[in-house]
Amino acid sequence: MLVRRLASTAPASASRFSLPPTVRQLLAHPSLPQQITTVSGWIKSIRKQKNVSFATITDGSSAQGLQAVLTKGKDDELLRKLTNGAAVRLTGQLVSSQGAGQSHELLVDQNRGGEIHLLGECPPETYPIQKKDLTAEYLREHTHLRARTSRIAAMLRLRDVLRRRIDSWFEMQGFYFSNTPIITGNDAEGAGETFRLEKVQSQHPSAVTPSTAIPPSEFFSRPAFLTVSHQLHLEALAAAMSRVYTLSPCFRAERSLTGRHLAEFWMLEAEWVLPNNDGVYGVCDLTESLLKETVSGILDGEDAELLWKDNETDRRGMLLDAFRSQRPWTRLTYTEAINELEKAHTSVSFEYQPKWGRDLQSEHERWLADSLIGGPVFVTDYPAPLKPFYMRDNDDGNTVACMDLLVPYAGELIGGSVREERTNVLQQKMGSSVDNEWYMDLRKYGGAPHAGFGMGFERLISWVSGTENIRECIPMPRWAGRMLL
Amino acid sequence: MLVRRLASTAPASASRFSLPPTVRQLLAHPSLPQQITTVSGWIKSIRKQKNVSFATITDGSSAQGLQAVLTKGKDDELLRKLTNGAAVRLTGQLVSSQGAGQSHELLVDQNRGGEIHLLGECPPETYPIQKKDLTAEYLREHTHLRARTSRIAAMLRLRDVLRRRIDSWFEMQGFYFSNTPIITGNDAEGAGETFRLEKVQSQHPSAVTPSTAIPPSEFFSRPAFLTVSHQLHLEALAAAMSRVYTLSPCFRAERSLTGRHLAEFWMLEAEWVLPNNDGVYGVCDLTESLLKETVSGILDGEDAELLWKDNETDRRGMLLDAFRSQRPWTRLTYTEAINELEKAHTSVSFEYQPKWGRDLQSEHERWLADSLIGGPVFVTDYPAPLKPFYMRDNDDGNTVACMDLLVPYAGELIGGSVREERTNVLQQKMGSSVDNEWYMDLRKYGGAPHAGFGMGFERLISWVSGTENIRECIPMPRWAGRMLL
Repeated sequence: MLVRRLASTAPASASRFSLPPTVRQLLAHPSLPQQITTVSGWIKSIRKQKNVSFATITDGSSAQGLQAVLTKGKDDELLRKLTNGAAVRLTGQLVSSQGAGQSHELLVDQNRGGEIHLLGECPPETYPIQKKDLTAEYLREHTHLRARTSRIAAMLRLRDVLRRRIDSWFEMQGFYFSNTPIITGNDAEGAGETFRLEKVQSQHPSAVTPSTAIPPSEFFSRPAFLTVSHQLHLEALAAAMSRVYTLSPCFRAERSLTGRHLAEFWMLEAEWVLPNNDGVYGVCDLTESLLKETVSGILDGEDAELLWKDNETDRRGMLLDAFRSQRPWTRLTYTEAINELEKAHTSVSFEYQPKWGRDLQSEHERWLADSLIGGPVFVTDYPAPLKPFYMRDNDDGNTVACMDLLVPYAGELIGGSVREERTNVLQQKMGSSVDNEWYMDLRKYGGAPHAGFGMGFERLISWVSGTENIRECIPMPRWAGRMLL
Repeated sequence: MLVRRLASTAPASASRFSLPPTVRQLLAHPSLPQQITTVSGWIKSIRKQKNVSFATITDGSSAQGLQAVLTKGKDDELLRKLTNGAAVRLTGQLVSSQGAGQSHELLVDQNRGGEIHLLGECPPETYPIQKKDLTAEYLREHTHLRARTSRIAAMLRLRDVLRRRIDSWFEMQGFYFSNTPIITGNDAEGAGETFRLEKVQSQHPSAVTPSTAIPPSEFFSRPAFLTVSHQLHLEALAAAMSRVYTLSPCFRAERSLTGRHLAEFWMLEAEWVLPNNDGVYGVCDLTESLLKETVSGILDGEDAELLWKDNETDRRGMLLDAFRSQRPWTRLTYTEAINELEKAHTSVSFEYQPKWGRDLQSEHERWLADSLIGGPVFVTDYPAPLKPFYMRDNDDGNTVACMDLLVPYAGELIGGSVREERTNVLQQKMGSSVDNEWYMDLRKYGGAPHAGFGMGFERLISWVSGTENIRECIPMPRWAGRMLL
């Protein structure tokens, strides 16, 4: 009885919950609201006339703002406070618009039931996001407010929609999303490039008196690092679930200050049992399909339109061509790529001489994608010494079954390979230690030929949106010396 | 011309890519393959008879395995190696099954084109996952292989499907998924409970000679921690995007060894502008709807069936009732909850005396959900001193507009609140420092009334699957003293 009494105090609204439509939802289905509509958002711009004001309201949901026509009411003080950046809640009628560039507008006539609620003022004297054309660097200094700009908001929506499309694609292909660890004992890429966790006090510092002081110790009883890749852990899951992927943070303590590196970034990684032992071309096929089927749908959406700058038509044309042409993306072996680079070296003066056995430098990668191919290019089968131990040896004894996807202007986007599944070969390549035992077990006990890849999510955003610097491709970037918020 | 020549070397298969169906996909659409079907997976069990063997094959995609009937071929050696855990690729005919408990089976007749490929042997003498009924603790010691067990595989699939349903729900409600930082300058919950990053060498250690040695320094020029919550960063994004959420790793350096705490866990967090300034009940409404609409669909799926133990019918009944009944979940204010606890304290002997102004202990929370209500219960409006600075003060001057969702057997699942949007009130509660300035800015410049919540994803999995210990609700758990792989 008590239960019932208490339950009955809960409002009935819980039965079918729905937030009111966002600006995007309103504009996509303008007939839905019919009568009176309420919208919350921020004033993007406002033009005040004698009896009426025209405001653009954004709630971050759409590249287009909602045009609102505010008929003057009695409260002059309120009107004065309607400035750029102010938060408002408007109630009015959504009607077809006469104006250009907008299908609908919101009529807020305060004399006929329309309402303007000022939710939060925005003092124009000090508001940091007032002006247009603020520099990227200025906005990085104001990370906490920069999502108020059209570009950063568009980037945030692009991340959201690409992630959703990627999730759908993997689901369709029978993959399971998995959360692999962030804190790990693997110092995978060697000293100096991984973040390490500090030892912890065994007791709260304030409780420690000289006589009870215990030296700090490893929280996990051994050194702990932030992961640089989820591959090894995904391999363990793929050895049971067959097809797994993740989109997860990775970390590099690199002092790099380029526009292509972050200390904290998100990586899409997948591992799967090769259905027909189809080698590295199976990895190329899968990643090419993934990109074509997820990216194509967003290339001329309003967010991509907004992000591409007008002066980048060549670059954008190359991107569109890569996705619209029926042509499969080019595949070159490393050896073929080196041949092309050596031929070109007579006319193009590379800083580093291309030579078989040496790593491809950024300038080489750029030339292959930008100039030689003019589009995405898979470079496969690198010499074994250039690549990590887990990549599968090819039968030629020199190269491994790997691929890098190079894309114009953005360079390396994806790295992947068939993984070495032969216990004895792997043992020889990685050596044996207690730390490696679990990884060997994956082969020893029902190991199946499998492959995987990793793709920097911010690099993908950078490529498809024409954004030069990946610091503008993540909400709150971290790099050497810089961590705001 | 070169481009075209190179392009033509790529296989045409890239045009429409599809991996072969998984066991789940096969069983869901058994008519699709019609003729010859190839499946890769691991032998879950095998019964060998004179001329024919019966094997259950799992590829991790489904709680059900695929029954395979293997007609004996000429290779006795191969048959001997078909043991539990071995990886195989089978080609045969998918036909309707006569046997009980399965709709279809795979006929692999090696004399009629059927094929058995042994992809990886699994030595029975040493395979750690052979036996059934391995203890949870034993499997934690074998984290890298434990996804081979039915329970852990079911949990992994449950995580995947719940995540997808949650994503769909948020998308429908106009939310954007956002990646907020993992490394942060906020030492949010105070000393001793956050992981801190070690300082880094400015140079590779091997390059440091005594004369060039530079003391290690903060990589980000200031102390860096692993985040304990994404709330503050999400608030910054909500101040531009209106509705944002994340499902992201969080970290606590707690020495807790309970079955409800992990050092690394995943948290679903959301922040949104309150559409009608509807207070804490708006948070209850949203979270109740989120849970009801995402969890209901999975409660009697085959993975939930597998995870619930037979002896837990009462507990499971309570869960099903919470989701199937049309009744809204009970809401109590903290004050009402304390009253009920005080009344009960005469008959139930709590270890801690319930008293207004004191925090609810786990035993109190459990009693409220398990005994008083027998279902999920929102407890709202706690005394201000018990809750963090960012929760909105109620007009009574004593309490804040917050809620905890307590659920039977699992305790606190969600914590949320309206956030204090008034600059002056917030300033008073948090004090002023340079570190707080950005958070104040969110109010100063067009701050809108907003709310948010956090839900431990592993706790959700634990509750809906009847899994006692959250170490079995995450692929590779980390807790004090323990970090395998």
